[in-house]
Amino acid sequence: MSLTLQRIPAFSSSLFCRCSSKFLDRLCSRMISKKMRVSDALACKETGSDVRIQGWVRSVRPQKDNLFLHLNDGSSLQPLQVVASSQLNTRDLTFGCAVDITGTLEKSPNKRQNVELQAQSIKVVGECNPMDFPFKIKERHPLEYIRQFPHLRCRTNAFSSMLRIRSEATAAIQSFFRDHGYVQIHTPVITSNDCEGAGELFQVEPTGDKKDSDDPHFFSVPAYLTVSGQLHLEVMAGAFSAVYTFGPTFRAENSQSRRHLAEFYMVEAEIAFTESLDDLMKVMEDLFKAATEHVFSNCTEDVELFHKHVAPGHREQVDPMLNRKFNVISYTEAIDILKSSSQNFTFSPEWGRDLQTEHEKFLVKHCGNTPVFVVNYPYELKPFYARDNQDHPRHTAAAVDLLVPGVGELCGGSLREERLQLLTQRLSQAGLEDTYAWYLQLREFGSVPHGGFGMGFERYLQCILGLNNIKDAIPFARFSHSCQL
Amino acid sequence: MSLTLQRIPAFSSSLFCRCSSKFLDRLCSRMISKKMRVSDALACKETGSDVRIQGWVRSVRPQKDNLFLHLNDGSSLQPLQVVASSQLNTRDLTFGCAVDITGTLEKSPNKRQNVELQAQSIKVVGECNPMDFPFKIKERHPLEYIRQFPHLRCRTNAFSSMLRIRSEATAAIQSFFRDHGYVQIHTPVITSNDCEGAGELFQVEPTGDKKDSDDPHFFSVPAYLTVSGQLHLEVMAGAFSAVYTFGPTFRAENSQSRRHLAEFYMVEAEIAFTESLDDLMKVMEDLFKAATEHVFSNCTEDVELFHKHVAPGHREQVDPMLNRKFNVISYTEAIDILKSSSQNFTFSPEWGRDLQTEHEKFLVKHCGNTPVFVVNYPYELKPFYARDNQDHPRHTAAAVDLLVPGVGELCGGSLREERLQLLTQRLSQAGLEDTYAWYLQLREFGSVPHGGFGMGFERYLQCILGLNNIKDAIPFARFSHSCQL
Repeated sequence: MSLTLQRIPAFSSSLFCRCSSKFLDRLCSRMISKKMRVSDALACKETGSDVRIQGWVRSVRPQKDNLFLHLNDGSSLQPLQVVASSQLNTRDLTFGCAVDITGTLEKSPNKRQNVELQAQSIKVVGECNPMDFPFKIKERHPLEYIRQFPHLRCRTNAFSSMLRIRSEATAAIQSFFRDHGYVQIHTPVITSNDCEGAGELFQVEPTGDKKDSDDPHFFSVPAYLTVSGQLHLEVMAGAFSAVYTFGPTFRAENSQSRRHLAEFYMVEAEIAFTESLDDLMKVMEDLFKAATEHVFSNCTEDVELFHKHVAPGHREQVDPMLNRKFNVISYTEAIDILKSSSQNFTFSPEWGRDLQTEHEKFLVKHCGNTPVFVVNYPYELKPFYARDNQDHPRHTAAAVDLLVPGVGELCGGSLREERLQLLTQRLSQAGLEDTYAWYLQLREFGSVPHGGFGMGFERYLQCILGLNNIKDAIPFARFSHSCQL
Repeated sequence: MSLTLQRIPAFSSSLFCRCSSKFLDRLCSRMISKKMRVSDALACKETGSDVRIQGWVRSVRPQKDNLFLHLNDGSSLQPLQVVASSQLNTRDLTFGCAVDITGTLEKSPNKRQNVELQAQSIKVVGECNPMDFPFKIKERHPLEYIRQFPHLRCRTNAFSSMLRIRSEATAAIQSFFRDHGYVQIHTPVITSNDCEGAGELFQVEPTGDKKDSDDPHFFSVPAYLTVSGQLHLEVMAGAFSAVYTFGPTFRAENSQSRRHLAEFYMVEAEIAFTESLDDLMKVMEDLFKAATEHVFSNCTEDVELFHKHVAPGHREQVDPMLNRKFNVISYTEAIDILKSSSQNFTFSPEWGRDLQTEHEKFLVKHCGNTPVFVVNYPYELKPFYARDNQDHPRHTAAAVDLLVPGVGELCGGSLREERLQLLTQRLSQAGLEDTYAWYLQLREFGSVPHGGFGMGFERYLQCILGLNNIKDAIPFARFSHSCQL
């Protein structure tokens, strides 16, 4: 760290008597200049103002008289061009270093940017040895490469764009629900529900030395990381009518797939007084479209990076999703479509069996490569809470999945069985009547028809950005054999 | 569940030939009436419109000719008054039942409300046996009592008000940071950092049958539930300048105190290019005031419930916090104040020792019962990342706590040691140089002065609402020996 304007005398107690008036001007300018973010500078209409901008150097281009820098502070993908006298150049002014620059915002002669910063002083705040830094100047590193540096990858263009989009998409989803009168509920991460013994659960206990010898469990019962906030949201839907949660959920799946994480984010909504899957599908479709339109218009540059460089041509796949109504087919129709296709599936499609990834892909393609809702699944395939359609001979439950191009299952939802007698029966058959006594009570006291759904947030980002691997859609990826940082 | 207008003939295929024109009117009215939330109905300026409102009955008052109901759907504390002909009364129309009502919104003769709903039909959607339901009509149950029913307590006035406030406070905090250019980061829940071996950690492994015999750990390393997102935010502050996270954090504390939970929410912010605790304190103070003002003006009724019935007189304690500047004292001054007081402390105050709850309480009172920042704690008391003030003989670190009335420590923060050499030294002394190699690298590549803080969200709600017990500030409380639902 050093003051880079070489001619500035060393800072000392007798500073003010020793230094030139030019230096004093500069010192004052740094002290009184308005701190500004790069994004604000780029949007600045009025030039001529003295500003102070801090950030990291993304490129250094020394010329005979002038020095050109690109300065990024994370507020936007586009850097701010900085122009300085060559005299301000120093050895430690390198790609990746942190700088504190004061100067004047001026209209740029270059039409790629409105303004540029004419620097009066450049201070290198933190050096960066370009030999050791894993990212190289002006190189577009593949996502697989930057994934190896979980503590540094946010300093690349692609990953910082993704994280800005993720932040904005989060805000969009929260606005969507708030504007529609939903109450946000922080459903618990630690839960004693083992969710119908679904397996793939993480269990939670204090580290060794914190264990209480009298009680094998910290919570007196086995406790797990939540796989869904649904049951807790059902509690809340019985008081607020419309609720949602947006938080981490967990699966102990021994998978390294491009679509699975051990810790991922889920948006879940639960709506009381809902009697039809149509109502649920409308919320899912509206949410998808509203969030995506918000992101596309608020993060134009960041989104463009993905649609140009990471997944070229992807925008042409997403736009029709926003402009057309999503398709709806029944599970039974889906099986018929699959059966009558000429494709050789690894798993042969059969009524009563789960749809496999290959089937989902085929159905999405069959429907013109746009999202498709599949409704009314076989009753036996669905968990105890799915509402019995009481149909026959093909007995179905009012459940729905949303399949989207590239990703497969994006959302899953159902109407919930609100009829006390039917629910009691099903839970008894599974031997879960006592475990879910509290859940049955929700049906005893002012029960209402209701339903809800969950949307995988990282898969949503994969879908709209064309991200092949889910590990690139989350700040810190956790999956089997990997929990870095 | 039954149609409660007794005279309506049973629904059948020959319905339309059999029923009266009056019934048809009612049927049509239900089909075409606009669904409306109670809060929208209460705010409705135009009367005379046909609406359909669904919710739960909070009171039933049958009179000779008329029946009066209070209808709540969770959209507001205030219920909607429903007036119906006595003929619409039925046995299953009780406190707690769910109803679907159509009728006309009319100006209310009662000045306690603008409008009332003149019901044409009332359908009991879900019955509620008042003998079995744990809450009694018009009774104000103590929070301790309703806490016993985690699946039902959201149906009480107090707890539903708290949850609406919590949802709104969440939105306010997120807006605050978004408006100030912060990027929201979802820091991970599962982490391999054991945060300087602080103890009180939960460890995470798959349930028994999911273990991999070749590897003792699912993630190949021991994995814990996060106690703070700080280190991950520091990674991100090095790219985005200003970042925040708002999510669950965990402590395996064997405590049943009114201020501790095993799972609680924390707001954490990290700001690059920050060289002074003043800057951090400004963010904390602005955040506290902005969020509180938002909540007080957007949840007036809900907040009033707490300030009138749960903690009478509390508003008079909070208002000065919003209008005055928070106090700032140094740790050294704090110790002097405590030492020179006449109070008998259980733990005698001594420079170099942690402040105890009794000390915090005294300091807050001493400062006029308003929030007080305590700055510059003994270096040895603070974790490795706290920035060395390099002072002597009393060696301090640039750390800050915010103490508030009733709650004690609400926020904790510090400048972080950004100087590679000093940080390396301290980590080596603790034998943690290898564990935190990645953290040291953040100081190697474009390091910047930075700092951040965390605010306990439930404690914040306790503070502004006057909630004595933290278990009443979270939807589902988790603490030692308790993990219900």
